[in-house]
Amino acid sequence: MTVDVLAFGETMAVLRATAPGPLRLARTMELGMAGAESTVAIGLSRLGHRAGWVGRVGDDELGSLVAERLRAERVDAVVVRDPDAPTGLLLREQRTVDQARVAYYRTASAGSRLRPEDLRGPLRAGARVLLFTGITPALSDTALDATRTAVDHAAAHGWTVCLDVNHRTKLWTSREASDALTPLAAKATVVFGDEAELDLVGGARALLDKGVREVVTKRGADGAETTTAGGRWSAPARPTGLADVIGAGDAFVAGYLSALLDDLDQPARLERATTVAAFAVGTTGDWEGLPTRAELPQYGSGTAR
Amino acid sequence: MTVDVLAFGETMAVLRATAPGPLRLARTMELGMAGAESTVAIGLSRLGHRAGWVGRVGDDELGSLVAERLRAERVDAVVVRDPDAPTGLLLREQRTVDQARVAYYRTASAGSRLRPEDLRGPLRAGARVLLFTGITPALSDTALDATRTAVDHAAAHGWTVCLDVNHRTKLWTSREASDALTPLAAKATVVFGDEAELDLVGGARALLDKGVREVVTKRGADGAETTTAGGRWSAPARPTGLADVIGAGDAFVAGYLSALLDDLDQPARLERATTVAAFAVGTTGDWEGLPTRAELPQYGSGTAR
Amino acid sequence: MTVDVLAFGETMAVLRATAPGPLRLARTMELGMAGAESTVAIGLSRLGHRAGWVGRVGDDELGSLVAERLRAERVDAVVVRDPDAPTGLLLREQRTVDQARVAYYRTASAGSRLRPEDLRGPLRAGARVLLFTGITPALSDTALDATRTAVDHAAAHGWTVCLDVNHRTKLWTSREASDALTPLAAKATVVFGDEAELDLVGGARALLDKGVREVVTKRGADGAETTTAGGRWSAPARPTGLADVIGAGDAFVAGYLSALLDDLDQPARLERATTVAAFAVGTTGDWEGLPTRAELPQYGSGTAR
Amino acid sequence: MTVDVLAFGETMAVLRATAPGPLRLARTMELGMAGAESTVAIGLSRLGHRAGWVGRVGDDELGSLVAERLRAERVDAVVVRDPDAPTGLLLREQRTVDQARVAYYRTASAGSRLRPEDLRGPLRAGARVLLFTGITPALSDTALDATRTAVDHAAAHGWTVCLDVNHRTKLWTSREASDALTPLAAKATVVFGDEAELDLVGGARALLDKGVREVVTKRGADGAETTTAGGRWSAPARPTGLADVIGAGDAFVAGYLSALLDDLDQPARLERATTVAAFAVGTTGDWEGLPTRAELPQYGSGTAR
Amino acid sequence: MTVDVLAFGETMAVLRATAPGPLRLARTMELGMAGAESTVAIGLSRLGHRAGWVGRVGDDELGSLVAERLRAERVDAVVVRDPDAPTGLLLREQRTVDQARVAYYRTASAGSRLRPEDLRGPLRAGARVLLFTGITPALSDTALDATRTAVDHAAAHGWTVCLDVNHRTKLWTSREASDALTPLAAKATVVFGDEAELDLVGGARALLDKGVREVVTKRGADGAETTTAGGRWSAPARPTGLADVIGAGDAFVAGYLSALLDDLDQPARLERATTVAAFAVGTTGDWEGLPTRAELPQYGSGTAR
Amino acid sequence: MTVDVLAFGETMAVLRATAPGPLRLARTMELGMAGAESTVAIGLSRLGHRAGWVGRVGDDELGSLVAERLRAERVDAVVVRDPDAPTGLLLREQRTVDQARVAYYRTASAGSRLRPEDLRGPLRAGARVLLFTGITPALSDTALDATRTAVDHAAAHGWTVCLDVNHRTKLWTSREASDALTPLAAKATVVFGDEAELDLVGGARALLDKGVREVVTKRGADGAETTTAGGRWSAPARPTGLADVIGAGDAFVAGYLSALLDDLDQPARLERATTVAAFAVGTTGDWEGLPTRAELPQYGSGTAR
Ligand SMILES: Nc1ncnc2c1ncn2[C@@H]1O[C@H](COP(=O)(O)OP(=O)(O)O)[C@@H](O)[C@H]1O
Ligand SMILES: Nc1ncnc2c1ncn2[C@@H]1O[C@H](COP(=O)(O)OP(=O)(O)O)[C@@H](O)[C@H]1O
Ligand SMILES: Nc1ncnc2c1ncn2[C@@H]1O[C@H](COP(=O)(O)OP(=O)(O)O)[C@@H](O)[C@H]1O
Ligand SMILES: Nc1ncnc2c1ncn2[C@@H]1O[C@H](COP(=O)(O)OP(=O)(O)O)[C@@H](O)[C@H]1O
Ligand SMILES: Nc1ncnc2c1ncn2[C@@H]1O[C@H](COP(=O)(O)OP(=O)(O)O)[C@@H](O)[C@H]1O
Ligand SMILES: Nc1ncnc2c1ncn2[C@@H]1O[C@H](COP(=O)(O)OP(=O)(O)O)[C@@H](O)[C@H]1O
Repeated sequence: MTVDVLAFGETMAVLRATAPGPLRLARTMELGMAGAESTVAIGLSRLGHRAGWVGRVGDDELGSLVAERLRAERVDAVVVRDPDAPTGLLLREQRTVDQARVAYYRTASAGSRLRPEDLRGPLRAGARVLLFTGITPALSDTALDATRTAVDHAAAHGWTVCLDVNHRTKLWTSREASDALTPLAAKATVVFGDEAELDLVGGARALLDKGVREVVTKRGADGAETTTAGGRWSAPARPTGLADVIGAGDAFVAGYLSALLDDLDQPARLERATTVAAFAVGTTGDWEGLPTRAELPQYGSGTAR
Repeated sequence: MTVDVLAFGETMAVLRATAPGPLRLARTMELGMAGAESTVAIGLSRLGHRAGWVGRVGDDELGSLVAERLRAERVDAVVVRDPDAPTGLLLREQRTVDQARVAYYRTASAGSRLRPEDLRGPLRAGARVLLFTGITPALSDTALDATRTAVDHAAAHGWTVCLDVNHRTKLWTSREASDALTPLAAKATVVFGDEAELDLVGGARALLDKGVREVVTKRGADGAETTTAGGRWSAPARPTGLADVIGAGDAFVAGYLSALLDDLDQPARLERATTVAAFAVGTTGDWEGLPTRAELPQYGSGTAR
Repeated sequence: MTVDVLAFGETMAVLRATAPGPLRLARTMELGMAGAESTVAIGLSRLGHRAGWVGRVGDDELGSLVAERLRAERVDAVVVRDPDAPTGLLLREQRTVDQARVAYYRTASAGSRLRPEDLRGPLRAGARVLLFTGITPALSDTALDATRTAVDHAAAHGWTVCLDVNHRTKLWTSREASDALTPLAAKATVVFGDEAELDLVGGARALLDKGVREVVTKRGADGAETTTAGGRWSAPARPTGLADVIGAGDAFVAGYLSALLDDLDQPARLERATTVAAFAVGTTGDWEGLPTRAELPQYGSGTAR
Repeated sequence: MTVDVLAFGETMAVLRATAPGPLRLARTMELGMAGAESTVAIGLSRLGHRAGWVGRVGDDELGSLVAERLRAERVDAVVVRDPDAPTGLLLREQRTVDQARVAYYRTASAGSRLRPEDLRGPLRAGARVLLFTGITPALSDTALDATRTAVDHAAAHGWTVCLDVNHRTKLWTSREASDALTPLAAKATVVFGDEAELDLVGGARALLDKGVREVVTKRGADGAETTTAGGRWSAPARPTGLADVIGAGDAFVAGYLSALLDDLDQPARLERATTVAAFAVGTTGDWEGLPTRAELPQYGSGTAR
Repeated sequence: MTVDVLAFGETMAVLRATAPGPLRLARTMELGMAGAESTVAIGLSRLGHRAGWVGRVGDDELGSLVAERLRAERVDAVVVRDPDAPTGLLLREQRTVDQARVAYYRTASAGSRLRPEDLRGPLRAGARVLLFTGITPALSDTALDATRTAVDHAAAHGWTVCLDVNHRTKLWTSREASDALTPLAAKATVVFGDEAELDLVGGARALLDKGVREVVTKRGADGAETTTAGGRWSAPARPTGLADVIGAGDAFVAGYLSALLDDLDQPARLERATTVAAFAVGTTGDWEGLPTRAELPQYGSGTAR
Repeated sequence: MTVDVLAFGETMAVLRATAPGPLRLARTMELGMAGAESTVAIGLSRLGHRAGWVGRVGDDELGSLVAERLRAERVDAVVVRDPDAPTGLLLREQRTVDQARVAYYRTASAGSRLRPEDLRGPLRAGARVLLFTGITPALSDTALDATRTAVDHAAAHGWTVCLDVNHRTKLWTSREASDALTPLAAKATVVFGDEAELDLVGGARALLDKGVREVVTKRGADGAETTTAGGRWSAPARPTGLADVIGAGDAFVAGYLSALLDDLDQPARLERATTVAAFAVGTTGDWEGLPTRAELPQYGSGTAR
């Protein structure tokens, strides 16, 4: 079945400390799942689009956790169960109210063993949009290969190719990231990132020159901005009570792609993107708070009795 | 025994999600109780007034929860145990930090089966003030009858009659509410509501024209305002850290009525009302955080060591 | 797609008190889902069979909870979202360590509005086995009709028809149950129940006389027994630490049907049934602890380090 | 108002560790209340008797906790709020599954400041039964005086005087206890204790010789035994799942006194006593699990669905 | 072994309510430890200094909790186990989001029985800085003696003597505090306090006149200010999300002393003080969130992924 | 400083599911630490012996958790902080009440990088007893080397050498274990294991023939048995309520070595071993419940009030 958006990457189990303070003093952690690309896929699925996702997890309970949640969310997921490696794991520490830290147990994880063959079927099945992030190429050589294969295939078949740079300093250096991602970004239709991330792949101007159609700068609480050859649009962040900013960027991308699939214009894309992001910011967890299409207009509607 | 204030209505059990996010992903909920009129009664009792309350609950554990708490709070409660219907139940979802949603399991609940006879004894026993809300008439025909009976009795006996409009869109349409509440409001001495709710019963001007003595507009974080034939007074909300705004309006009413019973002037009524409301806003739950009279002056006193 | 087993009924949200004691003193409850037939379906799905389920839930968060979990468990579910009624709700109180009590909020629930049309598609799609319980006919006239429709269709098409009597005293009297269930039981291939439940539908002997092929008596901690025209087999309960016996009977049925689908002989059916039940008894919740096929042989394997 | 049973003593706040292990490693504790005599009073009140209780607490939140719970339970309580001393506090450690330890913060507590005057009104109001325990005389000189005053008054007015020995080794030595309690026991109508406690006050034989009417030996899991001048009756403990044995003895006394008030014969007294105790054993907390009269026959009724 | 800073005082166990609301309605409390001077010692130890602490606790589990944590934190602690008195206990109620209240169970606690002999060894061993607070002299006569002994010894041996006034209105009146603390302050090198506390010991001007070298005014969210004979420096509070302001002042002192030991200038002392305080404000608990030296530069670094 | 017992190995962080059921459905996990050898060291330290431990952890929060707890427990620990590898992590699933499962994240962990040099200092410092387990040689080549180095050194210097076989099937095959451990066992003075583990290293008879002095067979709930050249002694398990059997074997070894250090005879060694084990069985966690010397005689002392 053809999907609207095909995403791929690593989705891990996450254990989150439940109160601010050093992790070594924590007693209780909450188990969940996290993965930038699957968050986007869930966001799109909740908004009524057909979202696909491809990735590897271990043949273990944490892998089942990932697979079951994606099914629950109606993501059209190809979850390869790797018998030879465990599902990756992420510890999230809230060092202070403002400052989060992560520890990865993802070296040699199942997710990092993604390879081009894993994507073959889904690529052949087709999609309107390919979404990938700068995390996947950092995971391993095979994952980099898989990314290149997917991007080339999508570009060759005229799909809209979207990159969210998502630079992860724990996985590689800025130099390594820049080397790997710049050529991939050049093949993209839409590139998302914060200022520094966009610079890593050459900056908005250069990207547009190379043929990227839309460059979207995410500015956290300061909102976001789209630059195209034809102009520049910006939108403030939607005011919202703050539960946990993690996942805001992925939610933003989901909202943006949803509007793009609906053929909305630039301001409307930013508006949906910031609205979906506001739901993420106002709830705990990366993907849990993402809105359904029916909930979108409820944004900011306050308290029912 | 004559009470200072007699209230009546439906008090339900409430189950509250403990973290922001969609209810379907919640794991743990907290059990408590909720009811606008009983919150006012508890508030008054804590402030040292004799508060009465009448209502029905089921002959079940959740009904006992309500009855026991009202006894604990020294509310002079007539809790009719209805053997034929369950205690109403309310699920409270914190969809995002800012946005709460409710699901009711109160159709055909014991509380909605309130009828005029239930009020007979307490009305005969007498009170200085009658408090009712716009929720009760929405529950059932018998509850509407009970409300009319009570208002007529109180008006006839020269009690101060207070209405808190409290429009509930899940129970009836604005049109239905307007039709039922406007004549009741006309018989009131004091009417509370937000701007829209007051419009539903004709607006402040019309109410005063019909003989209502004080119309009090609640404006959430913007405070409140009293309009009488003789003038207009307003008060800002008291600055407070925010735990949960639910119950603020009921707390406000409790504070206002307390000051009215103490014969304080208009500014002092608003001051006590907003102070009691600040306690509600700064704590979790509808009634849990209401201040005792001894605590009133502690408002804003900060942190003891 | 043809399934191995088709089940139907009402699945509700459940709120469970987390510690023994009267519900009115509880503070925290855990949110989950419960439904005898969907528990059997989940059990079968985990054991590798294609399990279908049909039922109604509300168009609300609790309905989504049910729908998402069934998808997660790969149950081939037709979850009708009823816009006019809420998802049923069940409160589970652990009055003492040994004594559980329930309070239902299921009157006029979506699930009780099941009707014959809801089953039309799945019945047409076909199955090897039809599973129904004595709960569904107790829910409403339309649900009783739906049950009759399904049983007649299945019997007419030569499916194996399985009834788990599951008498619910809160829903109807023994007399009502007997009247409704006896004719349905007569059309069944396999009937499950405890001694008293089997008596309600005529007793093992009479059932066999009417053409029922296997009558299975569940005896809790004392195990179970199968009676057929050709003989009688019994099996002890599997020794297991006890977490929560709720769901044991449904787990038992899932195990039994799994073995039946695998064409195992009578002793092996009881063995699998009691093994799957032991997993249910040794974990909290109705369906959560059901084993995958890979886990079956791990029963009783003790503690890994 | 005359009560059926008048009890008095110290009721404290209790903080309970929620998992077995050394207290120094605990993270979370549950707040409640504990007091042998108020547990008996709650037990009697739930069984439909009019139970009175007299004691002191501080003018603090923990004192309010005690006062509110007793009101909730319909105990006719005289809760003296002592402005000069805090409410006593008890830490309960579950050192291992089988071994509980306590730490008291009750030196100079409000409760230990009980004095004869506190009892004057309630004694004058009258009762059929006086219940006291060996804990109160150990608290302070004034509490010992209060005990003597009450016992003398009750004996003089022909009340049934009941003593539960309840020896507390943290409060005084066996020698001190024996000296203080033996003369008090001699004035009692019914004396409860385990074998060693009864020996402390002279032993069953000597007590009967001095005019005690019934001596009841509590034997934990081995049940209980009544000895009178006329005979000896024993009863096994009721089989029950075990949550927490604390409070079993007080529950037993409540059940026994309830049957005595109902004029049941010796075997029926033991039966009710052990049944009420079984509810206590099968739930967490001292008084939380005590049965209402309606629940008494539900003992052992198993699991509802 | 010589330490950099020697502190002494009372460290108690603390039980904290986990949600805002009146303590009497709390169900769960968290167990921890609290003590102004040990918080400073932990802060210094984490910043890489050798910190000593002297105090008494009971020979009980809560005393072990204190002793074990100080060892864990590498504080060079002399924890005297007093067999005759329990470890002090502190209940912390979050009455509203903004308003905390405490109840002490520290009368006749082990910690209050500190006496000069307890300090003998550590004083003889030597230190560069002595830290004491205005709490210790309020605990008992022997604790006041111990304080005087320590201050005199330190002053005589040319140590830097630091006083954090920390006025506790629950322990003594302002008058008593002033009488006891003014002469002690006169012997100090550095005095910390808020405006009112500094006035209690004569005010900044008078202190400087008496030879105090630095007077540091803590102003909560408004930052802090140092006054010396030579000038005045002020620093704003560091912007931070707020978890719990308790312990901020002690954290501030730890940061200040750390910079002083590192021989940093006045602005740098205030900067480190406010930075360490920001870590305390942004985490729950008094000492839990204090930064290690490696974490200091991470202040305000936001969210890692 | 010379210690009584020197142990070494890998200690990891552990995350434990808090309720029985499949890990993928867990929501909350508890953070702690686990390591067979450090459990023995903590047990010995609590019993008043000087216990040393050597191991590696990462330079991360979980490593600090380990280091801080060992300091808190007064274990004389050399905790090497490895900057190049993370602290190992263990997920503990309670699949059913009786059946635990683990998932390791310890491949290439810091702990597995133990090497001979890490032990040099502690070996030189000396000890009366060396304790090692069959886990360490399975971790890596360097860890195997470290084990050999330690055993050879200890044997050469006449220390008592103790091996607890502790076969871990997730780390190596029985064949690999047998090959590596048999020669090490031959050099031991005391060897602990269950029947199957002892067979892995040749069986009791062969071990004694090779010069092992005491072979101790652990039989879980069936107690334990010592075989020496001179005889055979057995002891039943101590009856105890069961919280969590994990850690029982390590507790047993701690008790045994404690008695050995105290020069008790064979029956007394088994008695102390089974008593210490009973504390472990009756509490949650591996090491948390281990008794202090003062607590030893409290075993089985029941419930204090
Ligand atoms: N504090 C906030 N309040 C409201 N919206 C926010 C906030 N932080 C982020 N957002 C929304 O999320 C979007 C993406 O956030 P950003 O932090 O830039 O992404 P990323 O998570 O990729 O770093 C922003 O454009 C904004 O719309
Ligand atoms: N965020 C807030 N901060 C402080 N006070 C508030 C806040 N929200 C409400 N209040 C107080 O509660 C009162 C009633 O609140 P409002 O929201 O108007 O009532 P209702 O709950 O009936 O809608 C206000 O007048 C104000 O005094
Ligand atoms: N305490 C128990 N221990 C072990 N197995 C049990 C226990 N209780 C029930 N079972 C298993 O579950 C099966 C069904 O349990 P039962 O209680 O008879 O069903 P139901 O839940 O339908 O009443 C039994 O046949 C047995 O195999
Ligand atoms: N383990 C148990 N199982 C069932 N009933 C028990 C158990 N322990 C105590 N009981 C009941 O509680 C009663 C009083 O218990 P006991 O322990 O003797 O009292 P106390 O708490 O005063 O020491 C017993 O007579 C028995 O009926
Ligand atoms: N709300 C806040 N935000 C940021 N920093 C704060 C806040 N409150 C206190 N601080 C910091 O803690 C320091 C000490 O706080 P203060 O409240 O004055 O001390 P104390 O706890 O002794 O009363 C302040 O100087 C400031 O640096
Ligand atoms: N269920 C139990 N009840 C009481 N003691 C036990 C229990 N299980 C283990 N023990 C005690 O712990 C000791 C070691 O337990 P075992 O399970 O043999 O060790 P291991 O944890 O190394 O497998 C036993 O000898 C016994 O003394």
